[in-house]
Amino acid sequence: MVPGVAEDLLEDGHEVLVEAGAGETAGFDDDAYREAGCDVLDDRAAVFDRADVIFEVEALGAIEDGDAEVYREGQTVIGLLGPYEVDDDVLETLAERQVSAFALELIPRISRAQSMDALSSMANLAGYKATVLAASELDKLVPMQMTAAGTVQPADVFVIGAGVAGLQAITTADRLGASVRAYDIRPEAAEEIESVGADFVELDVHADDAADEEGHAQEMDEEFYRKQRAQLGEEVAEADVVITTAAIPGGPAPRLVTEEAVAAMDHGSVIVDLAADGGGNCDVTEADERVEYEGVTVFGPTNLPSTLPRTASDLYANNLRNLFDLLVEEGDLAIDTDDEIVDATLLTHDGTVRAPHEDDGETDG
Amino acid sequence: MVPGVAEDLLEDGHEVLVEAGAGETAGFDDDAYREAGCDVLDDRAAVFDRADVIFEVEALGAIEDGDAEVYREGQTVIGLLGPYEVDDDVLETLAERQVSAFALELIPRISRAQSMDALSSMANLAGYKATVLAASELDKLVPMQMTAAGTVQPADVFVIGAGVAGLQAITTADRLGASVRAYDIRPEAAEEIESVGADFVELDVHADDAADEEGHAQEMDEEFYRKQRAQLGEEVAEADVVITTAAIPGGPAPRLVTEEAVAAMDHGSVIVDLAADGGGNCDVTEADERVEYEGVTVFGPTNLPSTLPRTASDLYANNLRNLFDLLVEEGDLAIDTDDEIVDATLLTHDGTVRAPHEDDGETDG
Repeated sequence: MVPGVAEDLLEDGHEVLVEAGAGETAGFDDDAYREAGCDVLDDRAAVFDRADVIFEVEALGAIEDGDAEVYREGQTVIGLLGPYEVDDDVLETLAERQVSAFALELIPRISRAQSMDALSSMANLAGYKATVLAASELDKLVPMQMTAAGTVQPADVFVIGAGVAGLQAITTADRLGASVRAYDIRPEAAEEIESVGADFVELDVHADDAADEEGHAQEMDEEFYRKQRAQLGEEVAEADVVITTAAIPGGPAPRLVTEEAVAAMDHGSVIVDLAADGGGNCDVTEADERVEYEGVTVFGPTNLPSTLPRTASDLYANNLRNLFDLLVEEGDLAIDTDDEIVDATLLTHDGTVRAPHEDDGETDG
Repeated sequence: MVPGVAEDLLEDGHEVLVEAGAGETAGFDDDAYREAGCDVLDDRAAVFDRADVIFEVEALGAIEDGDAEVYREGQTVIGLLGPYEVDDDVLETLAERQVSAFALELIPRISRAQSMDALSSMANLAGYKATVLAASELDKLVPMQMTAAGTVQPADVFVIGAGVAGLQAITTADRLGASVRAYDIRPEAAEEIESVGADFVELDVHADDAADEEGHAQEMDEEFYRKQRAQLGEEVAEADVVITTAAIPGGPAPRLVTEEAVAAMDHGSVIVDLAADGGGNCDVTEADERVEYEGVTVFGPTNLPSTLPRTASDLYANNLRNLFDLLVEEGDLAIDTDDEIVDATLLTHDGTVRAPHEDDGETDG
């Protein structure tokens, strides 16, 4: 929660309790919350004890020791709750306590829910930062330049996966003046890719069933991936920067960039693998490490939005607040399980475990 | 020297000797030079022994242990030779040996010499990289963004000094979508600043004599700097990123950003001080260190172009080659001291020490 959004909630008549120091990494000290009208409590337990609704960043399945014990009877929890990783007994405990737990990861991709879609907010920031990180690590200039000492050719950036993160990586590389190519398993992504300034790379592989009914990429068979990898290798070899974004929530990331492809890149090139959390799109990737392989630097950051805490906090607070608004009627909580968004995100409610819904294998890039 | 430019020299009928491993950091292995037609010698001493003309990156006064002993009778040396730092006895030795030593730092700012101006080539890269570094370290997004979760305001970038580095820092920040302001002691810089996308910040201080006859900034008195600092402090406090480029070659950098101004910036802001080599434009700067001060990160990189070795090598090789071409007539060295460029850059020649010319106190930003 950021002070500005807390202020909005207070104006709507809610009380806002904040744990002391909660905004520190995002640059908000406790006084900023006090000035906004929040109650700053020294004791984290007191916040959990007094609040009816808990806004969290990551909890339950999304963190190492996420447990259900901190929540009290009848409480509502909203946050990134790791619905694919959460233990069944944690959900059982929440249900027993009549906790209503909303997992933001499960926000459906419908236009009414866009303002609540924290994963999209964060993917957007990750895509931006992936390009900026690559530019700052690349051993050459990104933009073309005509100087008195000669013309500098633009860096060649290749983006794999044109979801929210991929499109923002392209946009940012294009802003910086790179020559950008991009690939997506979904042929219909071509138009979006071109609209943000990249050339669409078409591979000679069949991907008829690549998109599900929501237009998101599906998991394909091994033969498909083998052919895809071989052809992507040629594209990768020509690039100065490769940004991969083909993540499958709750599943392993497809391996798209081989060791051989990395080795074929020029010395000093950079790969940023945004799928590192699911094992990486690149053979060489190690989660949250910087790996040097045959002269190429490979980054596998699992939480780039956390390097942009001021922006990430603003957007995330808005996402939380927008979902919360959906749950409130005339100042009181009114959780309507018939609402598509509520239905999709609610892990436990009214004494029962409702989710996680089955993984639909969509690409989140 | 890069293989491409070596090839040009070979085509012109020259022989090109390269020390083994010389191109490694720029991504060129010895085979690349061999393929271009160069002679790759394992022994550095052999290169110095055989060559008539030595191209160097930094030598003599520009490096720690720069000495004259490596050069042989009658040799010609071209490179960044640190003309303001070089010892008199080093120059005496060079003169005794009839060495012709060209210091690229002294290339005059005339249009005919632009293609040889290595400091401009490097300042351009430093300005670009300063912005990219700042963006990658800043704790928020640089561009404005309208997202479903709300509008993100652009980061505020303030550039001090609008020489080559400053103008490129502005250009790059503008490309990335920042809101950019810039200040220069020379009022006539306003037009250039605005042409690359920034707002010109005018201070209420008299700077009538700020520019010399070549249009470069002059050193001013302490009272001027005190007023300037006070007013700049207000501009700095509002910025998310401050990039300072007010360097005076061979002299100490003016102190323009006080500790108080840094402390007044938002938590998470970034300063890149490109004048760190001369002590820094900012009180907090330490050369080649990352300093955290009151929540603000202050970088004092003294050699950003070296982080872009591929581009830097290309441009520098062209600069060398262009100066070299001026010294050659029909395939033979013909050093004409009546030529303005030769006259300005030649430290020793024909048995005499000719330079360094007096420091004219120009700002190199």
